[in-house]
Amino acid sequence: MTTRGMLIVLSGPSGVGKGTVRKAMFRDKKRDFVYSISMTTRKPRPGEVNGVDYYFCSKAQFEQEIANGGMLEYARYVDNYYGTPLKYVNQTLDAGKDVFLEIEVNGAMQVRKKCPDGVFIFLTPPDLSSLKKRITGRGSEDQKTIDKRMLKAVEEIKMMRQYDYAVVNDTIRNAVHRIERIIESEHLRVPRVITQYEKMIGVVKK
Amino acid sequence: MTTRGMLIVLSGPSGVGKGTVRKAMFRDKKRDFVYSISMTTRKPRPGEVNGVDYYFCSKAQFEQEIANGGMLEYARYVDNYYGTPLKYVNQTLDAGKDVFLEIEVNGAMQVRKKCPDGVFIFLTPPDLSSLKKRITGRGSEDQKTIDKRMLKAVEEIKMMRQYDYAVVNDTIRNAVHRIERIIESEHLRVPRVITQYEKMIGVVKK
Repeated sequence: MTTRGMLIVLSGPSGVGKGTVRKAMFRDKKRDFVYSISMTTRKPRPGEVNGVDYYFCSKAQFEQEIANGGMLEYARYVDNYYGTPLKYVNQTLDAGKDVFLEIEVNGAMQVRKKCPDGVFIFLTPPDLSSLKKRITGRGSEDQKTIDKRMLKAVEEIKMMRQYDYAVVNDTIRNAVHRIERIIESEHLRVPRVITQYEKMIGVVKK
Repeated sequence: MTTRGMLIVLSGPSGVGKGTVRKAMFRDKKRDFVYSISMTTRKPRPGEVNGVDYYFCSKAQFEQEIANGGMLEYARYVDNYYGTPLKYVNQTLDAGKDVFLEIEVNGAMQVRKKCPDGVFIFLTPPDLSSLKKRITGRGSEDQKTIDKRMLKAVEEIKMMRQYDYAVVNDTIRNAVHRIERIIESEHLRVPRVITQYEKMIGVVKK
């Protein structure tokens, strides 16, 4: 009997470097978990390969998938759809393998509702550890600038509340290291292993 | 302003090797967390040092501490008391330092009630990964032996339910490694860091 895989969701405010961290994770080492490739209706950029960078499809196909309930999460940016096909994620999890998603915050909140037992990691901007300094500046900023920064910081922290972990992206290496630790550690959580132990006992009981 | 330290509790069935793993943790590396030394009324064994291995005290002193509410947890084995003085734990946590306890399962459940936000790690016997094999044996065991093993395994798993993490003590090195990962990872959990972020913003708001 196979234990269902773990869903790992990496998200965070736009511009935080989610894509860079995710690419580094899968470039550096062979991983026990697989990356779920997103589907999009935007045209491939030079060098982008279908089934590697994205699954490219038409708007009609994407809207059909939505209508069929085939998307785990999706969003529309400008005039294009981006999303995660449910089928691959479910098949992989059912096969006992962990799935890694790297998605926008709105998408992550859709996934949270559908998969509450996933691991939700919020990547925070590299300078959040010096948030206070950044907000107040060196005394040279005017009140308007400080207020704007404050508002942004408050919004970010509100988003963070919805996640399990906060990882500061100070360096890519550090961020990758922290995410590795989280994944290793999550595999030791009692709610994830207890079924396995109980199954073992259950098998014997019969 | 200092963020309160994290309470880490290592426990598990008797004979699992809690003490050995804990000693290895503090011998191998300089740690960011401190070990809370237990208090006992039993006599020091040859080589044991007061304030290093235990705080040795009289039965009257120990009972006075209990009466004063000065024990975080305690238990009586045979004719002696063993327990964790609350004062040192609180002072250390208040100073922003993590505290590591290595205690019996009954004590851990007392701590769970008082400090629900602690990190509770259940050390499982080295052969739990091959639990099924161990229970059924090689077909050579009689039903009575299997039943006895089954009962023990069920009891262990019931205890495990009360904990956050399960760590298999297959080798001391592996167990220490896993506990390190858990501690690192727990420091990234949103409920632990959000106050820090909010404080930073709060300071600026004034």
